[in-house]
Amino acid sequence: MALLSSGMKVLTLDNMNPCIKTMEYAVRGPLVIRAVEIEKELQAGKEKPFKDVIRANIGDAHAMGQKPITFLRQVVSACVNPEILEDPKTPADVKDRVSRILKACKGGSAGSYSDSPGIEVIRRDVAEYIKNRDGGIESNWENVILCGGASDGIRGIMKLLNVVGADGKKPGIMIPIPQYPLYTASIAEFDMAPINYYMDESKNWGLDITELKRSVTEARATSNPRAIVIINPGNPTGQVLTRENIEGIIKFAHEEKLFVFADEVYQDNVYDKDSKFHSFKKVLMEMGEPYSSMEMASFMSTSKGFMGECGFRGGYAEVINLDPQVKAMFLKSISAKLCPTVLGQITMDVVVNPPKSGEPSYEKFIAEKTAVLDSLAKRAKMVADTFNSIPGIRCNPVQGAMYCFPQITIPAKAVDAAEKAGQKPDFFYCWNLLEKTGICIIPGSGFGQVPGTFHFRTTILPQPDLLASMLERLKAFHIEFTKEYS
Amino acid sequence: MALLSSGMKVLTLDNMNPCIKTMEYAVRGPLVIRAVEIEKELQAGKEKPFKDVIRANIGDAHAMGQKPITFLRQVVSACVNPEILEDPKTPADVKDRVSRILKACKGGSAGSYSDSPGIEVIRRDVAEYIKNRDGGIESNWENVILCGGASDGIRGIMKLLNVVGADGKKPGIMIPIPQYPLYTASIAEFDMAPINYYMDESKNWGLDITELKRSVTEARATSNPRAIVIINPGNPTGQVLTRENIEGIIKFAHEEKLFVFADEVYQDNVYDKDSKFHSFKKVLMEMGEPYSSMEMASFMSTSKGFMGECGFRGGYAEVINLDPQVKAMFLKSISAKLCPTVLGQITMDVVVNPPKSGEPSYEKFIAEKTAVLDSLAKRAKMVADTFNSIPGIRCNPVQGAMYCFPQITIPAKAVDAAEKAGQKPDFFYCWNLLEKTGICIIPGSGFGQVPGTFHFRTTILPQPDLLASMLERLKAFHIEFTKEYS
Repeated sequence: MALLSSGMKVLTLDNMNPCIKTMEYAVRGPLVIRAVEIEKELQAGKEKPFKDVIRANIGDAHAMGQKPITFLRQVVSACVNPEILEDPKTPADVKDRVSRILKACKGGSAGSYSDSPGIEVIRRDVAEYIKNRDGGIESNWENVILCGGASDGIRGIMKLLNVVGADGKKPGIMIPIPQYPLYTASIAEFDMAPINYYMDESKNWGLDITELKRSVTEARATSNPRAIVIINPGNPTGQVLTRENIEGIIKFAHEEKLFVFADEVYQDNVYDKDSKFHSFKKVLMEMGEPYSSMEMASFMSTSKGFMGECGFRGGYAEVINLDPQVKAMFLKSISAKLCPTVLGQITMDVVVNPPKSGEPSYEKFIAEKTAVLDSLAKRAKMVADTFNSIPGIRCNPVQGAMYCFPQITIPAKAVDAAEKAGQKPDFFYCWNLLEKTGICIIPGSGFGQVPGTFHFRTTILPQPDLLASMLERLKAFHIEFTKEYS
Repeated sequence: MALLSSGMKVLTLDNMNPCIKTMEYAVRGPLVIRAVEIEKELQAGKEKPFKDVIRANIGDAHAMGQKPITFLRQVVSACVNPEILEDPKTPADVKDRVSRILKACKGGSAGSYSDSPGIEVIRRDVAEYIKNRDGGIESNWENVILCGGASDGIRGIMKLLNVVGADGKKPGIMIPIPQYPLYTASIAEFDMAPINYYMDESKNWGLDITELKRSVTEARATSNPRAIVIINPGNPTGQVLTRENIEGIIKFAHEEKLFVFADEVYQDNVYDKDSKFHSFKKVLMEMGEPYSSMEMASFMSTSKGFMGECGFRGGYAEVINLDPQVKAMFLKSISAKLCPTVLGQITMDVVVNPPKSGEPSYEKFIAEKTAVLDSLAKRAKMVADTFNSIPGIRCNPVQGAMYCFPQITIPAKAVDAAEKAGQKPDFFYCWNLLEKTGICIIPGSGFGQVPGTFHFRTTILPQPDLLASMLERLKAFHIEFTKEYS
């Protein structure tokens, strides 16, 4: 085959979509690619100062050895293959669920397309779950849109806001810094404007309303702010917002006429005894008019919580107070994608409609759920305590979610060395950590941080023994790194 | 709650993304919404001249009673719940597949994220399948990108081409008319320019190269043509392109410097004895340089073929000859969506790597696959023959895919009546058909047609008895409709 110069290609870096070029997604970026290479090197027998790579870069519980919830897997597998139900050991509540769900599938098969917003029975179950979660505040099932993981829903709704104003200004989306990089990646892809607001690390990553105002006011010079994203419990920061803080944010969003994106995928992951999850919808409804008429979307996922079924791609968006014409357009826009995975929808159903007290699978389900959440709570504490015991690392308590985002002191000489290597200092730190210990974590620059500060994000997901060993390795590395560059 | 005027909303029809507003997706449009309403009316006991709605609007085999392939469901269900493997009745080849796939999943669980382009083992199986399909022409597994149904892959690659030129012209995508509305919907959403080329109904929906040239030449005045989409076997038109025709299209695409989108999701659905599926990649490779260096993407899905697993959302794109830098950008862009559903990926694996001769599940698998494809072939003939027996309807043979796109004569008085009702004449025809018979099919205007001609698309998917009854009802309706408006 003749060698082709890039110039002969129809599609080149010079004539491709520039928005795709500017996208960044640190959680799956160069460090993760290097981690995969190192794994292959280890498999090929290459000598390293460690035996395995520890992937603490992504919130993927099963990849780190978390066991699935038995009831969930029983229901999903029997929806795939109803012959399983003939096994006399199958619990009656599994049979009931499967028969109820398959009856709601076209042709009685999970292999048929569902309606684009999802299967009605499951949307109704989600609405019921939301109502119970929110102390009886009504949820209309027609406002529940099932999607292939929360990301899919977030992107679908964000798109609606994408219009350049008559003044030529791009639509702006307020995002927390640090943030989950789905937001910056999607905003870049859609050619919208990110509007950064800093969370206050000194106040346990709370949202300071003055900072929100500064951020939106400055942004108005160059963009047209249309929405605010709040991640609660926080990713990568692990905080759980107080009700008072949420009220302040809602008032702010109302004043500034912003659409509210409440990324609440960690709503089941609250570990701190003094913290409680308050849904944005509940707070907004309880605040009454004019707030209870505000437009908002809340997102949930099957990938997090106690189930951790990332690969099944289940999720939902609850959209409230949408202009009916806008909602019709939203529904039309998702119809071109046909439907979210039916098996992901079924997974979502089990999450919102778990075994009830008295049903045969109840005891086992509760035991499994509690074991996962208790263990995560212990690991949350272990991680924060260990980091706070290391000179040059300090972090806020991990109140919820699955991450810790400690601040690290990087010596000036290391900053110089990073510069020489053409790397950001925190990237340089994480790169060295990976090469020397096999631990894969993500530098704070992938999430955003106050200029001049350095952080990293680690998950709390390695199983307890591995986590303890990882924290040991990390501690030793940090001490050595600090010494080397002092 | 106070009534809200639209003007109080943050997001209204006036300030939302205009591209979303212009999207159309006929296959799930107003007729389908009305069909759902009618079903509910029937359930509520309302008197109608028919007892059930027949959904011939969408290529959803399971919804129309097609049975799933046993082996496929066994493998997917046991990947969800490996405890099933303990059942002594589980065939050994099912066990082998499940253990091989789960070993390739992180943490041994289908509930973990996969790499964004999919699980390596499955990408390798797909590459092997393509190689065998194409008579030994190599396929590099790293060019195989798994996706959540073909639509997802098509949209992901189409996005790459989306850049407005220095001359202000939008990028243009050549699409067949009639076309599958995913294309017009996605092109509208991305604010690109559709470039219509008409297929030749008089030549069995072949592609006339003169027409391709006319189309691209006219389009250059207002857009920047970047790619051509070919759907083979055809949707909605059911033709299978000859090798000679494919060669002509490839030469044309080369001359005009177009990226080739080969939508080949119906590659297993060829019924006509004199027709054969030729993949674009095989033809292009066999043509040698310069054609064998052309950039192309071919798409496949688990939703069609003999398996019809629409709800599982499996698919792949094979991208060849991409500029390596562009490919890196593509891989980066899909990473923000995390990964396609792992269960969809596993479904794809079974499709490309079915039981082999000598394995315990082989006989049953072949029997089931043959039964489905033979029955579809019979139904393809039944549909075309019946339509051609009705005065005022005629159609080309259904050589492949799952659809028939007959031309219908609509009397002038009916055209007038449609105009009065504010409807397109073919929409008026289909609307009346739905109201009077319960048959839901899609008017040709949803796919595009030569101005002044009228068509509809029906699937061939209702099971034989239902299909026979549907064709009877449709025939009676057509005769009565023609009489009424003559």
